[in-house]
Amino acid sequence: MTIKDARTPASSQDEQPIAGEKSTESGKSIGWHKGYVEGSRPDLRVPVRQVHLTNGQSVTLYDTSGPYTDPLVDTDVRRGLAPLRENWIIARGDTEEYAGRPVRPEDDGIKHTSPRGGNLRNLDAVFPGRPRLPRRSRDGGAVTQLAYARRGEITPEMEYVAIRENVAPEVVRDEIAAGRAVLPANVNHPEIEPMIIGKRFLVKVNANIGNSAVTSSIEEEVEKMTWATRWGADTVMDLSTGRNIHTTREWVLRNSPVPIGTVPLYQALEKVDGKAEELTWEIYKDTVIEQAEQGVDYMTVHAGVRLPYVPLTANRKTGIVSRGGSIMAAWCLAHHKESFLYENFEELCEILAAYDVTYSLGDGLRPGSIADANDEAQFAELRTLGELNTIAKRFNVQTMIEGPGHVPMHKIKENIDLQQEICEEAPFYTLGPLTTDVAPAYDHITSGIGAAMIAWWGTAMLCYVTPKEHLGLPNRDDVKTGVITYKIAAHAADLAKGHPGAQEWDDALSDARFEFRWEDQFNLALDPDTAREFHDETLPAEPAKTAHFCSMCGPKFCSMKISQDIRRQHGGSQGEIEEGMAQKSKEFAAAGNRVYLPIAD
Amino acid sequence: MTIKDARTPASSQDEQPIAGEKSTESGKSIGWHKGYVEGSRPDLRVPVRQVHLTNGQSVTLYDTSGPYTDPLVDTDVRRGLAPLRENWIIARGDTEEYAGRPVRPEDDGIKHTSPRGGNLRNLDAVFPGRPRLPRRSRDGGAVTQLAYARRGEITPEMEYVAIRENVAPEVVRDEIAAGRAVLPANVNHPEIEPMIIGKRFLVKVNANIGNSAVTSSIEEEVEKMTWATRWGADTVMDLSTGRNIHTTREWVLRNSPVPIGTVPLYQALEKVDGKAEELTWEIYKDTVIEQAEQGVDYMTVHAGVRLPYVPLTANRKTGIVSRGGSIMAAWCLAHHKESFLYENFEELCEILAAYDVTYSLGDGLRPGSIADANDEAQFAELRTLGELNTIAKRFNVQTMIEGPGHVPMHKIKENIDLQQEICEEAPFYTLGPLTTDVAPAYDHITSGIGAAMIAWWGTAMLCYVTPKEHLGLPNRDDVKTGVITYKIAAHAADLAKGHPGAQEWDDALSDARFEFRWEDQFNLALDPDTAREFHDETLPAEPAKTAHFCSMCGPKFCSMKISQDIRRQHGGSQGEIEEGMAQKSKEFAAAGNRVYLPIAD
Repeated sequence: MTIKDARTPASSQDEQPIAGEKSTESGKSIGWHKGYVEGSRPDLRVPVRQVHLTNGQSVTLYDTSGPYTDPLVDTDVRRGLAPLRENWIIARGDTEEYAGRPVRPEDDGIKHTSPRGGNLRNLDAVFPGRPRLPRRSRDGGAVTQLAYARRGEITPEMEYVAIRENVAPEVVRDEIAAGRAVLPANVNHPEIEPMIIGKRFLVKVNANIGNSAVTSSIEEEVEKMTWATRWGADTVMDLSTGRNIHTTREWVLRNSPVPIGTVPLYQALEKVDGKAEELTWEIYKDTVIEQAEQGVDYMTVHAGVRLPYVPLTANRKTGIVSRGGSIMAAWCLAHHKESFLYENFEELCEILAAYDVTYSLGDGLRPGSIADANDEAQFAELRTLGELNTIAKRFNVQTMIEGPGHVPMHKIKENIDLQQEICEEAPFYTLGPLTTDVAPAYDHITSGIGAAMIAWWGTAMLCYVTPKEHLGLPNRDDVKTGVITYKIAAHAADLAKGHPGAQEWDDALSDARFEFRWEDQFNLALDPDTAREFHDETLPAEPAKTAHFCSMCGPKFCSMKISQDIRRQHGGSQGEIEEGMAQKSKEFAAAGNRVYLPIAD
Repeated sequence: MTIKDARTPASSQDEQPIAGEKSTESGKSIGWHKGYVEGSRPDLRVPVRQVHLTNGQSVTLYDTSGPYTDPLVDTDVRRGLAPLRENWIIARGDTEEYAGRPVRPEDDGIKHTSPRGGNLRNLDAVFPGRPRLPRRSRDGGAVTQLAYARRGEITPEMEYVAIRENVAPEVVRDEIAAGRAVLPANVNHPEIEPMIIGKRFLVKVNANIGNSAVTSSIEEEVEKMTWATRWGADTVMDLSTGRNIHTTREWVLRNSPVPIGTVPLYQALEKVDGKAEELTWEIYKDTVIEQAEQGVDYMTVHAGVRLPYVPLTANRKTGIVSRGGSIMAAWCLAHHKESFLYENFEELCEILAAYDVTYSLGDGLRPGSIADANDEAQFAELRTLGELNTIAKRFNVQTMIEGPGHVPMHKIKENIDLQQEICEEAPFYTLGPLTTDVAPAYDHITSGIGAAMIAWWGTAMLCYVTPKEHLGLPNRDDVKTGVITYKIAAHAADLAKGHPGAQEWDDALSDARFEFRWEDQFNLALDPDTAREFHDETLPAEPAKTAHFCSMCGPKFCSMKISQDIRRQHGGSQGEIEEGMAQKSKEFAAAGNRVYLPIAD
């Protein structure tokens, strides 16, 4: 699998532009390159996307695409990415390598003699890259960014995100210390480029990938991950439920420049052959350790689905729509017992603290339809998540809280307000919400609306929804559409929150638009390829890209052109403008009243 | 051009299902049919889309698709639609036919000897359908729905929309009388199925079509119109700017079941060969009469772009982005005179009142970038639109007010609040707004977000934005994507406003989803075709459509299935549930703890 050809112009090393240098190929400006901002030490280099404009200026954008877009880095998915943070982790001296839990066939869903036994070798695929012993806290204490922040330390990871977010490192430390932000960074995932999730920072986007029992393969999932980050995904959740679940995750982790999240319950359920009632705390715990050793950065834990809440869903229109939620509900009912996740939450905290795995406290009872939004079941669970958040913090475990779901616009704000109050401003991480149920095949849009709003009001990370939601598994195009839609929602929220610097991007693009710098418009666009393609569909000729009009209005009616002429005729300060109006008017007439380009008709 | 094949299953009359009767073709349920709700008179039949569910229930949805989806109506674009309202208009006795303004070659942009002279015959295309004399007010007074409403009359048009909106006719009359709603219905466009635009009613969506100097043809524009209404467009604006402008409009009007809007300034400018400074009030007025005689239902008039406001745009990032606005600004500067539209506004009111053309007071100074949102130029113009609204009402002309544009989320509410205050609650009609500038090729989404929000807060009609915005002219697919996106925004707003009955649609679809009635989900979807296609992409087999799972989670993990089992086990009232929990738990175990479908693995 090769990645480099996706957006860099050349595929072999020799022909590629050197990072930090503007290059051209066949006379055409490349338009952007991968750059780095150096921190206080040589191994702290924060990637950026540097867009070069034809007017000589440049715009610096946040970059999530990892080493894959750096032509100087030779990536190989079978080897994995370089362990960027390894020295930082070792230098802290609070972790140690250990033998680790032995990997068993059932980790990959190979428990019983299978009718597909002939495929066992394939199913048993391993990650070929450099073996590395797992690492954990040396003394059982917390080796989390939260623990460091509370001690007043600024870790290299914190400095890294401070540069990325263009804020002081102290701001990063303080937000983490207060529990208002998380920096998901498992000590066993040294490959990541650190990022932060919190309302004080840029709104983040998560993309879900994952094979299922029905379809898809390891390679596809790794490619979906790199593809998603290419378009701007800040984290990726691997929600695989089929076979090869352990190995798929290994490949994804070793190649991922962004934090990886999972729902360990899915794998635990595979281990008991899909029988929820056979789940035990021991099997679950074993799975969490297995995944923590691999390097999973955050885990969705549905510990808020308590036995007494299950009956609250009985009269819902769409019952329980979270897979994790429904599994735990089934377990609770089968045993008529309180959830083993809720009962063993403190022990789980100790485990997560030893690897710096961040909690994503799952909303197993989130509404799955407009009718069920903001109901008793949903808010009962949210109050429990508040309790659990307090416990997690006592163990120095970084924590974020998951949110809905399907919510009509007028009920969205209550969700974020209540969550912020109950969970002491822990980062909210929401799925949409979808603002109507009536548009399957367009749920990236029904949910993009809700996502933009809830992010404006304080949600820190948005879980994307693809056009395939409710209908099927997303393919490559769906992943891209989902990510782009959610980058729009996130950026719209950054603007609405008045995030410093957010508007520079819009301003640069609008300047380019007003000045008919078409190539700059494309290069600054969230999706340069599609913008260029759509333009070329109507006006394909190369000269059209420098023309002072576009196909929408044609050359005679272009409002931008007229507007430019007005500015040329009447520029200057307000006073000058008014003073000179009559005079200008005469000149305007004398110049032949030329408000349009002379064109041949 | 044939239309019938788009969503009705058969194309010839004989094989077609009878409206009002549920039919099947090759054993497959058709799922929906066109029905009518009869009013107080036999010629008052309001179309609805009746969706038949597999559980025997049915859901009634608003229908904008016109006679094209009625298999009993034989449509022919060369003949045009039947003049549904003709008898209602004649019966009022306040209009008369007259010879009308002679149609001149320059109406179609054929003024000078053209280098393309050989094509003159083609350019001179006419509409072949039944010629009809234009009609206008008999005594020069207002023949508008506003005038009738103020007199306390309930016209057939008002009754029609009352049925369509499921409210009392008095509500319709009162909202129109108060100027809070408009019912655009030119006496020369008897073909329309009346609809209403006002915040008290369902949020409406407009789709723009129109050829330009660069591309596209008459046939394409007519087809775009029928295509747009098929997917839910409530009105269509013909923004043609190229040749054949008069004839294109004639074809569109004669075939349109929805109100048609235009910007007469575009055609007036064609008549002066694109030289803004050569525009005169006389040429403009002649164009308005020409279009009013054809039957245009509402006209965008940029009378708020006043001379003193033009300099306010000088320091904008993107100047003036409205075509109409920039043309008027150029005229004002060229002559250093106040706008001829502003100066002659009262005479214009008299003309519009004589045909019942509705004003859409254009926002020529709307912001074209995030940086320019809510600036002095924009709000200066809005205050003038408020003045003009008052004048228009004095002449009994129905009036709505156009709004932006590019506005970040936190500045959206100010737009609608100010407009409602300044314009005495006249319907607001906004373009988006786009909530960020950085996503060309996805501006249906950047604007869909803003559209949903501003509609929730009171905007009555949303002008769609297609993926091609800023890049090119929309094709058929873009029109569909734009309409669907805006129907989502409009419906999300209807839900948020608590519009009576709006949620029934969501509830029906969510019920179908929970009960795995896949065919019902598809038939209830805003876009059944794409929903079905996406489902089939992963699980194409016919049995999958009745399967109790989908490809997302596979058969073992389906939360809906688990949730259904929970309900089966623990249904009933809250009290019964809690009481019976322990007992149920035992039964659950006794039944083999079956929370999943037995599947072969």
